[in-house]
Amino acid sequence: MIRITLLGSTGSIGQQCLDLAARLPERIKVVGLGAGSNIETLAKQARAFKPDLVCCAHASDLGRLKALIDDPTIKLEAGDQGQKALATHGDADIVVAAVVGYAGLTGTLAAARAGKRIALANKESLVAGGQLVIETLKSTGGSLIPIDSEHAAIHQCLSGETSANVHQLWLTASGGPFRGFSRKQLDNISIEQALNHPNWTMGPKITIDSATLMNKGLELIEAAWLFDTQPDEIAIAVHPPSIVHSMVEFVDGTFKAQLGAPDMRAAIAYALSPQDRLPLRQVDAVQTWNPLDTQLAFERYDRELFRAPDLCRHALSLGGGAPAALNAINEVLVAQFLQGERSFMSITEDLTRGLEAMASLNLGGDSIQAIVDADSAGRSWAL
Amino acid sequence: MIRITLLGSTGSIGQQCLDLAARLPERIKVVGLGAGSNIETLAKQARAFKPDLVCCAHASDLGRLKALIDDPTIKLEAGDQGQKALATHGDADIVVAAVVGYAGLTGTLAAARAGKRIALANKESLVAGGQLVIETLKSTGGSLIPIDSEHAAIHQCLSGETSANVHQLWLTASGGPFRGFSRKQLDNISIEQALNHPNWTMGPKITIDSATLMNKGLELIEAAWLFDTQPDEIAIAVHPPSIVHSMVEFVDGTFKAQLGAPDMRAAIAYALSPQDRLPLRQVDAVQTWNPLDTQLAFERYDRELFRAPDLCRHALSLGGGAPAALNAINEVLVAQFLQGERSFMSITEDLTRGLEAMASLNLGGDSIQAIVDADSAGRSWAL
Repeated sequence: MIRITLLGSTGSIGQQCLDLAARLPERIKVVGLGAGSNIETLAKQARAFKPDLVCCAHASDLGRLKALIDDPTIKLEAGDQGQKALATHGDADIVVAAVVGYAGLTGTLAAARAGKRIALANKESLVAGGQLVIETLKSTGGSLIPIDSEHAAIHQCLSGETSANVHQLWLTASGGPFRGFSRKQLDNISIEQALNHPNWTMGPKITIDSATLMNKGLELIEAAWLFDTQPDEIAIAVHPPSIVHSMVEFVDGTFKAQLGAPDMRAAIAYALSPQDRLPLRQVDAVQTWNPLDTQLAFERYDRELFRAPDLCRHALSLGGGAPAALNAINEVLVAQFLQGERSFMSITEDLTRGLEAMASLNLGGDSIQAIVDADSAGRSWAL
Repeated sequence: MIRITLLGSTGSIGQQCLDLAARLPERIKVVGLGAGSNIETLAKQARAFKPDLVCCAHASDLGRLKALIDDPTIKLEAGDQGQKALATHGDADIVVAAVVGYAGLTGTLAAARAGKRIALANKESLVAGGQLVIETLKSTGGSLIPIDSEHAAIHQCLSGETSANVHQLWLTASGGPFRGFSRKQLDNISIEQALNHPNWTMGPKITIDSATLMNKGLELIEAAWLFDTQPDEIAIAVHPPSIVHSMVEFVDGTFKAQLGAPDMRAAIAYALSPQDRLPLRQVDAVQTWNPLDTQLAFERYDRELFRAPDLCRHALSLGGGAPAALNAINEVLVAQFLQGERSFMSITEDLTRGLEAMASLNLGGDSIQAIVDADSAGRSWAL
């Protein structure tokens, strides 16, 4: 039995995680649930899974949450204190860190400080907080398994291998909706076009990041931290069908790849139980892929037009708070694009200019305060 | 340092194994060499690698071998006794069993009885002797790593996994030269057409087996023994480029695949050192594959026209000596085809009839004598 606390239970990853717990009650026990302001859904989840502890973001919601759950055996908390209580819950084998955005860093760091096993879906924890989170885990003996199809794939390909065996990592990318577009075509992209991702259904921010390939750049930063890899030892292959979720190339010329239908539940299940895989096929909890009559193509992308991955590589080599600042700049630029305030191509152009501006600031990344400062520096520049 | 004895040193696998040893002298030490009648090449190898022990097939060749090697520190032996001495060599960490054909079973079995780690390239050891070899290894604590691109791939995909994780194995097949041919086209196949394999350069017997898909059937039998898998848990996917060497499908819907250029040296190197992969890229000892701009397609094959894999599945489920007998029938039929004595399609047709005949004989497979008898029964039927 795997006992989990789930931070971010009402988001997409959180709900899929609970779907697995509902289908596999003899394998997964939910001991804690945390969410933001979606009190109705959180209460419904609490009634269904009966965890010991339930937390919401704001103390002002506690009354309503209590009334809706109506179960005196469930303890309720709120805010950062609640998130920390979930992240350090004594009964939890695994803390699922699925809060979206910066707010998730607090929970990840609390779990890391408590030496927990963390199933990580929160991007900012490594993109902005990589140095701090990894150093903390090293000192406490905690560990991290990624919930992200690419990183989960690499983690699986590395199973049974030593780091000396690895030549390089290969992140696959769908290529987004503008694969193969010319500069001229990219100059006339509408918001609707950019939001139309070919394979995955995701939120607007990550869909735009997928269109600029910034998403792949952020994954490159995460991969470097997760697998202790140099930026130039991570290659990117465009793979439109999103079946090969990523690959590892070894020193003997061998590749290992992890494949499957694009379904996040497979990555979530692996993060919860990497040794004893959960029987998702048996309980109909995953889309299956049949290799027969399929075509798997790998392509290059245009590094001049889609510069975000190289910018992320550069931010990584700058170190300190540079990746956090670049990530913050991107958040502002994408929000501006979604509000119709800038063109699609200007996102990449201003990311380039922004990283140049950040490089001279010598931003740190080894404390929460340093990360917050780096994030602010990026945001200020972009605004 | 990996110390090996090499049975079958002058064959294709043997020579490629020695190529690796020559390029990686600080990693691989050859302590014994064995071959058949190619005394010139064996002597040349002995002079180059200076093993303790060198064996040839016939005692009548010992004089010439001694003269050609001209090194009193190297001990010479011949015949079965020599093969057994190599297979049980006290200084060997790994016995590479690369003798071609039935003659190889003796060495594999001797190594299994001595509880050795065996890197296995000899097909007959498992196709005909699977039950005996695997039972022997279980009782002595010896182990087997396959040298065959498909089985090496599956072994790698299973690294770090438990058997309970596995849903099914996927053997990939190039499809041979007659992929997609109609019955009418197959009725008019010449020997030259059948010998023209699209991807791998191999001997004539295995090339014909590849054209009938019997090779894939024999690999299916090997896979069942190697990975303790039921015949119906091994699927076959035609994959013309021979880049995905095989795959494993897990209970969570996930696949792992091993990929690379078609180059046997990668499989040999893995069998010698599965934990610490040998740096073949660094010493330019392997063809490399670049995923970019490649296409990997998977197809079905026509199970009515290419019945050999299903016949092998059936032979496996019959058990005992049925696979050995089917293999023997195939050897005779292929030899007849290569001598222009029968048509291409009649190989499969008579394999079908032959297996029906064998099914009623209740052939055993648990001793050398039983295997020899099963082989004889198959050969007699076919002749």
